[in-house]
Amino acid sequence: MPEPTEPSLLLYAEVQRFYARQMQQLDLGKAQSWAETFTEDALFDVPTLPEPVRGRSGLAAAVGRAHGLLAEAGERHRHFMGMVDVLERADGSLEARSYTVVYASAVGGTSRVHRVCVCEDVLVREDGELRVARRKVTRDDLP
Amino acid sequence: MPEPTEPSLLLYAEVQRFYARQMQQLDLGKAQSWAETFTEDALFDVPTLPEPVRGRSGLAAAVGRAHGLLAEAGERHRHFMGMVDVLERADGSLEARSYTVVYASAVGGTSRVHRVCVCEDVLVREDGELRVARRKVTRDDLP
Amino acid sequence: MPEPTEPSLLLYAEVQRFYARQMQQLDLGKAQSWAETFTEDALFDVPTLPEPVRGRSGLAAAVGRAHGLLAEAGERHRHFMGMVDVLERADGSLEARSYTVVYASAVGGTSRVHRVCVCEDVLVREDGELRVARRKVTRDDLP
Repeated sequence: MPEPTEPSLLLYAEVQRFYARQMQQLDLGKAQSWAETFTEDALFDVPTLPEPVRGRSGLAAAVGRAHGLLAEAGERHRHFMGMVDVLERADGSLEARSYTVVYASAVGGTSRVHRVCVCEDVLVREDGELRVARRKVTRDDLP
Repeated sequence: MPEPTEPSLLLYAEVQRFYARQMQQLDLGKAQSWAETFTEDALFDVPTLPEPVRGRSGLAAAVGRAHGLLAEAGERHRHFMGMVDVLERADGSLEARSYTVVYASAVGGTSRVHRVCVCEDVLVREDGELRVARRKVTRDDLP
Repeated sequence: MPEPTEPSLLLYAEVQRFYARQMQQLDLGKAQSWAETFTEDALFDVPTLPEPVRGRSGLAAAVGRAHGLLAEAGERHRHFMGMVDVLERADGSLEARSYTVVYASAVGGTSRVHRVCVCEDVLVREDGELRVARRKVTRDDLP
């Protein structure tokens, strides 16, 4: 298999733009719009879920649930992604490795760093749009 | 009114570049240069001010004051913006929604998350430059 | 000397892409690859080192050492850079001033803000690639 190569600078900006909106949808609890930024059968592997989730309906359900629990607890979370490193494979899919810091704020309280994560995605293009086909998140505080 | 559309990727990069400099000017206490990144009659609505401020001179005064108080308190603040989501209106103005984390450091002490904010701007172009015509900031820790 | 000017938007995106990879290499402890993002005789002036380091071999050694100490201490660090403000000099070199927040996580413990820094670089192009010729880092918590 050929080595992945550097993406164009416009594609690099597109990946940034894609993630900014995706993270905002997540934090707004727009579970359906957020799930649509993944492919229909995307694999989503994050330490906060007991096992990897496959597919948009499971993703939307997990996010809806998480958002409801946060609201009950009087907390707000923001997912702040950055340091996005992107490589392009010969088939046009992208390998994107980035950092995500999750901030938590208690409404009426204070704000703090909640989690520091590394996010490893495979991005593909469908109908002209970038989508996550596979996401693996690891947390810095876990062994 | 027609729906806002996706900005070009170059415009997306321009918005990022604009914000980076604007935040640095703020943290450096360059009140006048910072105020000039707003339109002459910009409306600035942030929870740290008792009421919305309109216009550059009021903006510059508020920032000058805040910077002086910080220096007296032996603190440094950094405004770290990201996750910028931009939409372009039919008239060319931009709706930009982003996150800003404010870090505070006590000189001779430690650094911490001070605030986590959402920033909603309307950006317009004047004399070839992006400027903020309206800014609304909300804090995650406030009800 | 002529005043530095605004870089093109593509160059702005390139600087972001450059830093994202450079910070990841640092946090992964890829001391050699990281050192190669500097010029052969780069000057590196950071408050964590007793004196400025000059040249790639010294840089690689310092990073290798720091990474080993962190691993022993059961900690992980992430360097999250942003708010990159770039100006281009007449000779094509770049002045880049940015913020870097360093997050620390105790493995099996919690995550926190470790340092808030300002990073002032001079970037040059060698063999088509951006490289740091000079880096000065200051910490917000130090006088």
